[in-house]
This record gives sequence, C-alpha cells and structure tokens, in this order.
Amino acid sequence: MSCLEFPGPLFTDLYELTMAAGYFDRQMDIPATFSLFVRPHPRRAYFVAAGLQEVVDALTRFRFSDEEIDWLVQTGRFKRDYLAYLSTLRFTGDVTAMADGEIFFPDEPVMEVTAPLIQAQIIETYLINTVGVASLMATKAARCVHAAAGLPIVDFSLRRTQGSHAGMAVARSSYIAGFSGTSNVLAGKTWGIPVSGTMAHSFVTAFESEADAFEAYANLFPDSAVFLIDTYDTLQGARNAVMVGNRMRKKGNALQGVRLDSGEMITLSQQVRRILDQAGLPGVKIFASSGFDEYALERLIAGGARIDAFGVGTRMGVSADAPYLDMVYKMVRRGGSNVRKVSQGKITLAGEKQVFRFTADGGRFLEDVIGVRGETVNGATALLRPAMQKGRPVGPMPTLEEIRARFASNFERLDQRYKRLDDADLYPVRISERLEEIQKRL
Amino acid sequence: MSCLEFPGPLFTDLYELTMAAGYFDRQMDIPATFSLFVRPHPRRAYFVAAGLQEVVDALTRFRFSDEEIDWLVQTGRFKRDYLAYLSTLRFTGDVTAMADGEIFFPDEPVMEVTAPLIQAQIIETYLINTVGVASLMATKAARCVHAAAGLPIVDFSLRRTQGSHAGMAVARSSYIAGFSGTSNVLAGKTWGIPVSGTMAHSFVTAFESEADAFEAYANLFPDSAVFLIDTYDTLQGARNAVMVGNRMRKKGNALQGVRLDSGEMITLSQQVRRILDQAGLPGVKIFASSGFDEYALERLIAGGARIDAFGVGTRMGVSADAPYLDMVYKMVRRGGSNVRKVSQGKITLAGEKQVFRFTADGGRFLEDVIGVRGETVNGATALLRPAMQKGRPVGPMPTLEEIRARFASNFERLDQRYKRLDDADLYPVRISERLEEIQKRL
Repeated sequence: MSCLEFPGPLFTDLYELTMAAGYFDRQMDIPATFSLFVRPHPRRAYFVAAGLQEVVDALTRFRFSDEEIDWLVQTGRFKRDYLAYLSTLRFTGDVTAMADGEIFFPDEPVMEVTAPLIQAQIIETYLINTVGVASLMATKAARCVHAAAGLPIVDFSLRRTQGSHAGMAVARSSYIAGFSGTSNVLAGKTWGIPVSGTMAHSFVTAFESEADAFEAYANLFPDSAVFLIDTYDTLQGARNAVMVGNRMRKKGNALQGVRLDSGEMITLSQQVRRILDQAGLPGVKIFASSGFDEYALERLIAGGARIDAFGVGTRMGVSADAPYLDMVYKMVRRGGSNVRKVSQGKITLAGEKQVFRFTADGGRFLEDVIGVRGETVNGATALLRPAMQKGRPVGPMPTLEEIRARFASNFERLDQRYKRLDDADLYPVRISERLEEIQKRL
Repeated sequence: MSCLEFPGPLFTDLYELTMAAGYFDRQMDIPATFSLFVRPHPRRAYFVAAGLQEVVDALTRFRFSDEEIDWLVQTGRFKRDYLAYLSTLRFTGDVTAMADGEIFFPDEPVMEVTAPLIQAQIIETYLINTVGVASLMATKAARCVHAAAGLPIVDFSLRRTQGSHAGMAVARSSYIAGFSGTSNVLAGKTWGIPVSGTMAHSFVTAFESEADAFEAYANLFPDSAVFLIDTYDTLQGARNAVMVGNRMRKKGNALQGVRLDSGEMITLSQQVRRILDQAGLPGVKIFASSGFDEYALERLIAGGARIDAFGVGTRMGVSADAPYLDMVYKMVRRGGSNVRKVSQGKITLAGEKQVFRFTADGGRFLEDVIGVRGETVNGATALLRPAMQKGRPVGPMPTLEEIRARFASNFERLDQRYKRLDDADLYPVRISERLEEIQKRL
C-alpha cells in the first residue's frame, strides 16, 4: 500500500481537533452517525466507489503515537486531560459502505460511520480525502473506458498526477474501472496490475538511426516489443518497424505493436495500418497516446481511427475536466436523534440510511431509492454493507480482481443514456417514504 | 517529510526501465544531461519553483532494495546482468536547479540533471511528478496571494486535495507562496507551518443553541476563538458572537474573529462589521471562506468586502483552473554532444543551460536570458545553482522560512502586469547568442 498508507491522525484539519476538544470538555462524546456523499456535479452523471480498503486499513490502525501527542502538548493549544484521552483513542465504531466498484449517484451515501462523536469527527478529513481521490479517479477512468468502446486503455499518467499518492490511486482506480494496465511499475508490484511501456522518443534519438533503436529493442524484448514510430516521420517509422518486424518474424518472434504519440491520429493510424497490412504484418497492433481524454477517444473511434489500444495520461490522471468532487461528510444522527445541517439549496438527508437499487430482469439498473437503514424495500438490493463493526473489519476485503469484475458487471448494467459523456440522462434516485417522513419531522 | 517521502525507484514508468535495459545492453550508459522545464500555459504567466528538497532527498537515497530487485526478477522481463547492475545503482550525478521560491517562466529550465544515461533516465517520472505538483501548487497559491492584496490567506484544502501527498505539498507550497498558515495539522508538525481552524457547522448544531456552542468554545480556547456565524442566520450569528465576545472581554480575554462560510460575502461582511463595531468590538476580525479561488478574492476586495482574512480550499488545493503543468524532462546533451528532440512547434533547447536574470536598480525583474551553462552574461544573476555534485547534496538546504522569504522578495520584484490573473503580459525571455548558435548547429 505504498504511498496510500495512512499518514496518521494528524492528517486532519485543526478544527477537527478543536471541535473534539469541545465535545470532550462538555462530555458530548455520544454516538453519532455521519454520511459521506457527493453533491450533484455538472460534468458527472455517476460516480464509481473506491478507497474503502484504505479507509478500513487506516481506521484499524488509528492511534496517536507518543510523538504526535508530545507535539500536540507543546503547541500549548489543548488541555492535558483531552490529550491524555486522545492518546488512548482507537476507532471503535461501525462503518457501512458501498463496496469498491459500486456505481453511485449524487446525494447517495457511499459510506456511513457510526462512532462516538470525537472519533467520527477526527477522521473526517482523511475519509473525504481518501475516498474522494480514489472515487474521482475511478469515475474519470470509467468515462474513458466507456468512450473506448471495448478497446484496451493503459494508464500513462504517473508523471503528471498530483503527487505520489494520486499516482498510485490513479493506477488502482483506473484498473478497477476497466483499464487493462498501467505504466506505473510500483502499482504493478503493489497490486499485480499489468504494467506496460516500451520506449520514449529520447530512446530512439539515442541511436544512430530509428531502425537501429528498434533493432536494439527487439533483441532485448523479442516477445513484447512495441516501437514508437513518430520520432522523425510516422510513415517512415512504420516502414522501419516493418523492416525490423520482418527480421523478428524470421527469428520466430513477433513484433507486438507500434505506437503513435503525435499528429493527426485518424489519418495516420489508417495509413500505418495499411503499411503494416501490406507488409504482411496484420497482427501488429497500433497503440496511440497523445494527450487523450474520454472526449478524444470518442472522437477518434467515431472518426474511424485504426487504433487497437490507447494510452491515456495527464488529463485522465488529474481528472482535468472535473479535478474535484464535492464530497462531504455530514452528521445525520447524534445521541439517538436524527439531525441535519440547515443550508440553502443543499440537500443533506438526516438519519442512518440505506441505498436500494432496483434492477430489471437481466440486471439492468432501473432506479435507486435512498431509504432508512433497516427498512425493507421489496425487490431491491441494499448497497451499503457492513465494512467495520466495533472497530474491526467485517470479513476479508475483496481482491482487486474481484473489485474490477464487480465494476465491469455494474457498468454493463447501466444504460448508455446515463453514460453519455455530455448531457447524460439523470439516473432516477428517489427517497423512500420513511426517509421522507424523517426529514419532515425535523 | 511524511507523505512526501520517496516511494522508491519503482515509482516510475515501465518504459524508463526498458529503455535503460537497452542502454545497458548496448553499453550506452554514457553521461547525459536532461532539462526539466514547463511549456507555455494559457492560464499561467509565471511559475514558482518548489520540490527541490524532496528531489535531493530522493536522489541521495536512490537505490533498489533486494525486494524490489526480486520482484523485477520474477516479472521475467529483464536479463539478470541488467538487474544485477540495477541492484548496485546509486545516483552519482550532478543537479543544478533553481532554489525553491524562485520565479520562472515557460521554457526556462528549472532543473538540469547530468548523470550516466541510465540514472538520469530512470528518475524522470519521479522528478516530473514531484517538482510538478509542488510547483503547480506554489504557482496557484501565489496567484491567490497576489489577489488577496496583502490580506492573510489560510490553506483549507486538505480534505479535497488529490491524495495525501498533494495535501502535504499544497500546505508547504502555499506557505512558500505567502499563505499565513494551513488547517493541515500534520503540515504544522512536519514543517512548523502555523495551523489554524476552529469549528464547523456540525459543532454549532451539536449544541442546544448557537450561543451555547460559542460559549463552550470560548471557555476552552479563550485566546484563539473564532466563531462560525452562518450556521443559521449570519446576522443573528454576529449578534450571538457579540454577546459571547463581550462576556469574554469581561474575563480579560478577547474574541479573535468570526467566520462567514456562505452567502453574499460583500454585503454580509459589511453588515457583520457594522454589528461588531457598534458593539464595541472593532478588534474582532472577519474571516471568510466559501469555495474561493484567486478570482473570487479579487472580486471580493474590489467589491469592498470587509474581510480581514481568507480561507481558500478546494479550488486552490487542486489548482482547479489549471490542474496540471506541461512539465517535461528532455535530453539535451549526451556523450559530449548537444542533442534535442525533433518535434513540431515545441521548443526544446539543446545543450546545458543557465538562466540569467536582469534586474533594475532596486531589484525589479527586467528580462531573462536562457544561455549556455558557463557563459558570462554581464550584469545578470544566474538562477541555476549546483544542488548536487557527484550524487551528494551541495551545502545545507534552506529552511522553509528562508524559502518563503526568498519568494516574497522575488514576487515583490515582479511587475504587476505579469501578475494579472488574466491577460498578463508576457515576461521577456530571450535566448543568448551562444545558445542560439548551438541550436543552429543541430
């Protein structure tokens, strides 16, 4: 879990600690429930849940070290009895959550935490940050997967992500969303995600000629070579690839592909395809990468590009068109009473909740109902499931492959009209009568 | 350096390792120089350098662990002699760089690395990622500092940054750029950055009344209290703050401020100011936060808002209007020859370089010249300085306060017209005759 490890309880906003001090002082540390959800976003019709495993891991290990307490002492801000209390604090609460790989919609809780108020409060910043970045990236990647219409995509974003945690989260989240691999070697080692990548332009220019560079590479990687052919002239590059590819064939190896990284991709890919086919290399795939995002993928495919697989980088890896989600964590129940923040035009649903999903025969998603936790909604599936009870994980976490398979199955069952990149239909989400009653009573 | 620590040499794109395998196989591991720079960006007229300390730290500790080598072995991709070589690899090269807190412009190298080709290549992904995020955030924060026109700003972005590394980088980079503090407690502990924050709406709603919440908070933090007054009704909140503030005064304490977090800020802040002043509390400051970025700050100040300090969050913390820089790392010299990538419409300057800055009497920035490293440009200051020699850091790194002071001094010397949020003038950067000659010869 390198780079995704819990940075400790001081990875929090100061006000979480000052508020908790207030609750401690007034003996208000009573059970409370918080809901984590995303407010409607103009550019996102659905979201993909991710980050639960990091959260469970962090909450399991949640504790202030002596060094952290000592530092808090010397800030002079807090009373000693409060800090003594913090030094013994562990997470003892319950978490219900959608599994990673579930699809969720605006205002639906993706996680609810029930714990003594101080615990539930202090973890707020970490929870939003962690589930936020993982879900943001899984959502962006899912849009790319949709746009690629079944063609493989590889995550090439590592150098441009907003830091190392994001670099790892993008690799993992995009794999969940259906990417076939990543360039990120550490993600390969950490989670077994297939890694890919061959050469940059600087490799080609480091040799006397482009053909020399291809030859050197093919000798070393005879079964996995992809040649970058646009360093000088793409069509000549394709011919050089053919020359070396034919030599490889004679030795019993097969050139895997060529990669385009610049230029007008539709025409170029068609021309390169023709060169490869005419040279008797129809099995050599064409990979393309060039500042792509989901919109570019959709345009290229609609325009008849002869591309077999895509590398997507920066714009996916920072979710450039929507670089943050309005993810919030709101208190919905405290000391046995349902509560909610009063705010203008923003919905916060009081009470402990459940998300119910109705599906058609065959599994197609029909409608969601946000209801009261524990209520029965016949014929619907409850999406929030216990992830932690009394501070301990409930059962083993799913493997990454299981999460990926879950998402693939979900995504297939979401109608096209909800997946359109722009002007997607609004997926129907209604509120159950019982939950509505609770709101009215407040 | 929690969360900013070097994740190790596998935090890299696979192609860095495959290219390096090619260089190893062909005995091409000769000295090479790479330039790190940012291509022109439509929304950024200047950039702020940051991230050097992490880079020097990472390169000093650069090595493949046995476990990492074992994992590479079992991938079956690489030859054993190459992996044996990697297992002994250390960074033995030279780094020249602009210090953190320097201001730089498009196409100017902010760092150059000279090392045996394999070393210089493998670190590419990490360098771009690390310097990229730190500089991106320092640049965004500098724009906010400019817009705030001397008023203090605090970083409130932690929950919405793209992961934990970004959360830490934003706190550090925004402090370099002149923010007065952060809500990020871990950044306070790690670097001594002043931390601030008091309460959220949920704290206020947790009490019987707003006044009770203020009272409870004031009892606990009599010298540092700021009340959030917009939970129910902002003007009534201001009156409740006055009531509790007056009680605090009688006890010899002073309410520090009130915070607005929603609503039409210009009118509200004026009304709240009047309430505070009429109640004899002119020393109580008004803090405001509400999805601000540099554009909002500029509008509020121009509109006559009576705000004394700002909290800026999400949009700053993900650099929402420009969530990535086109930062690249290009080979410019290899084996004693200057080289550059051939590419359409994109400038890559061959050769080892220096950035010279001309200033007026009094220090105002006049013009930069990108020249050849080692050439003399009379009357100008050379900005790239040795940071590592033969793999070792050159001298001690500056403290964060020194970096912050350097930036403040630089920023003051950059004319207003280059700092405008939109349509800023293009700062003059030319290329020296000697560097021009090198380009022509290629």
